[in-house]
Amino acid sequence: MSVTLAHGAGGEKTLELLTKLILSKVPETLKRTPEGSGIDVLDDGACVKIGDKYLIVTMDSYTVNPIFFPGGDLGKLAASGTINDLVAMGARPIAMLDSLIVEEGTEIEIIDKITSSFIDIVVRENIPLIGGDLKVMPRGQLDKIVITVTGLGIAKRPIIDRDLRPGDKIVITGNIAEHGATIMALQQGLDAERYGLHSDCRPLLRPLLDIVEKYVNHIHAMRDPTRGGLAQTLNEWARDTGTLILIYEDRIPIRFEVRKFCEMVGVDPLYLACEGVMTIAVDSETAPVLVEELQSAGMENATIIGEVRESEKFRGTVVCRTVSGGLRIVEPLRGSLVPRIC
Amino acid sequence: MSVTLAHGAGGEKTLELLTKLILSKVPETLKRTPEGSGIDVLDDGACVKIGDKYLIVTMDSYTVNPIFFPGGDLGKLAASGTINDLVAMGARPIAMLDSLIVEEGTEIEIIDKITSSFIDIVVRENIPLIGGDLKVMPRGQLDKIVITVTGLGIAKRPIIDRDLRPGDKIVITGNIAEHGATIMALQQGLDAERYGLHSDCRPLLRPLLDIVEKYVNHIHAMRDPTRGGLAQTLNEWARDTGTLILIYEDRIPIRFEVRKFCEMVGVDPLYLACEGVMTIAVDSETAPVLVEELQSAGMENATIIGEVRESEKFRGTVVCRTVSGGLRIVEPLRGSLVPRIC
Repeated sequence: MSVTLAHGAGGEKTLELLTKLILSKVPETLKRTPEGSGIDVLDDGACVKIGDKYLIVTMDSYTVNPIFFPGGDLGKLAASGTINDLVAMGARPIAMLDSLIVEEGTEIEIIDKITSSFIDIVVRENIPLIGGDLKVMPRGQLDKIVITVTGLGIAKRPIIDRDLRPGDKIVITGNIAEHGATIMALQQGLDAERYGLHSDCRPLLRPLLDIVEKYVNHIHAMRDPTRGGLAQTLNEWARDTGTLILIYEDRIPIRFEVRKFCEMVGVDPLYLACEGVMTIAVDSETAPVLVEELQSAGMENATIIGEVRESEKFRGTVVCRTVSGGLRIVEPLRGSLVPRIC
Repeated sequence: MSVTLAHGAGGEKTLELLTKLILSKVPETLKRTPEGSGIDVLDDGACVKIGDKYLIVTMDSYTVNPIFFPGGDLGKLAASGTINDLVAMGARPIAMLDSLIVEEGTEIEIIDKITSSFIDIVVRENIPLIGGDLKVMPRGQLDKIVITVTGLGIAKRPIIDRDLRPGDKIVITGNIAEHGATIMALQQGLDAERYGLHSDCRPLLRPLLDIVEKYVNHIHAMRDPTRGGLAQTLNEWARDTGTLILIYEDRIPIRFEVRKFCEMVGVDPLYLACEGVMTIAVDSETAPVLVEELQSAGMENATIIGEVRESEKFRGTVVCRTVSGGLRIVEPLRGSLVPRIC
């Protein structure tokens, strides 16, 4: 058996391989720190209690191809993705570290643009960059550059997604599938900009975190739906909490150009990565207030797209009420839609 | 200008590229957290004050080639290297995260062996593994697998190497150049084991950290001399503190087989990576006691190899008194000896 692209797509196959390689080998007591959370819950980040503080730690490798795309580049994506993972845990970033692996022969000017984008975001968000590494692999042993980033943050109250519960509303902060559609188009040799596509990749720190902190006692889960898109995020939530998540197709905000592109290539936008929106599970009384605040703060497409229900029959399942009024099951991601999406 | 292997060798060229790509772009105030240390001092890890605790964070990418070698493999190296970086900061590991990037088509069995080695070390040292990532790159875009590891530790008193001062003795805990010689032989197509070579890669947590904590107020600098070997570590110390470091060639412990191999291929063992020894700068009264304790604890080759001096003429320089009684300057690493050494 060998590694396939599906193993890297962030869906069922990824979990299967992770389980074989890592999860099955680590004793339960070593999957988290005392009073913390870690690979026992597989959230956006781990939580480590230090004194009376909750330190959130997140670590991701960024391999996106192409490394420059409309709306951003590898550096912007790596910084934004890390910040968004911290925010998704309810944490305010306090420091970042980055490790670059570069291919011998790559133009330094190219790498320089990538690190400038990375640092632009980090500096603009006022986050100290405190460490990292730089390695070079000989020509032909790596495609140009990959970046791995560690993010540290402090959460007043960490948002651990297993808190999601029946009765919660599902809120999305903006249009979905923007990043995934853009990278997919580029990998198919299409001029993404001509199709009106551009990545939504951006840090969701301001103004989102202020609002989240205000309602943190009412927010039960939060995640940036990257690999595997909204479908994968909701499936993981449903699976991990044994709930049914019902979403309404006509409420999911998708930009016209993205929808058109998805129809053209025959792909479901629910599975395409977002890099600039957040999915939030929040109690039903707070949901409309939260949406209103998000909209006032500039996230004008923020909206309630569904709800969490108890269900014996559809335990762990995501169901979508289609525009025509039918119901369809939104399966977890099984194959690989786009390699090197993030 | 394009990236060369020398940019990844850990010497002057690495610092030059890091400065261009990262260090020159980050404002001084964002190179560390308040009351902490970071890329302002470029130590083995960064220090972040959280409440009344010193959190040490280290992050490194491991790209060693071949991924299996006498004495270890990529997984063991990645776990050991991270633990050793924490120990070098005077920190007790509290958690680790790992991010794997794997090439499509790689045998899962191979990756599985690597992650088993990694987890063996982590579990044996009782360190929680709390997060990470898994990405796949298409066939031909990466050579098999690279691992990036983040280590978190708590230090009672962080050992920041800029504390090194004239009067200090330089102690090494064991034989040098073992890992570097082994990987170099393998990359030259030689049967390393036939030459009696094997990597010294191992975690230096027990019993070293207990001893270090006992003498921490007398220890001013500590580093595991990996890329660029002992020569590079000492040169960085001398450069960063404006001191002269004098070492005695006949006191540096090198195993016969390693010395013979180095003579055969014409390479200076001072520049070859160690993955299982520590260099320690300690005040002169404590040095003999420290060495004795290290020896009693099983590090039988631990010894004083030199000292730190004030010098106008040789500020920032490492000088070696040769066996024949002459003096030679030990230059910082300029080129690249062995790619993908760690």
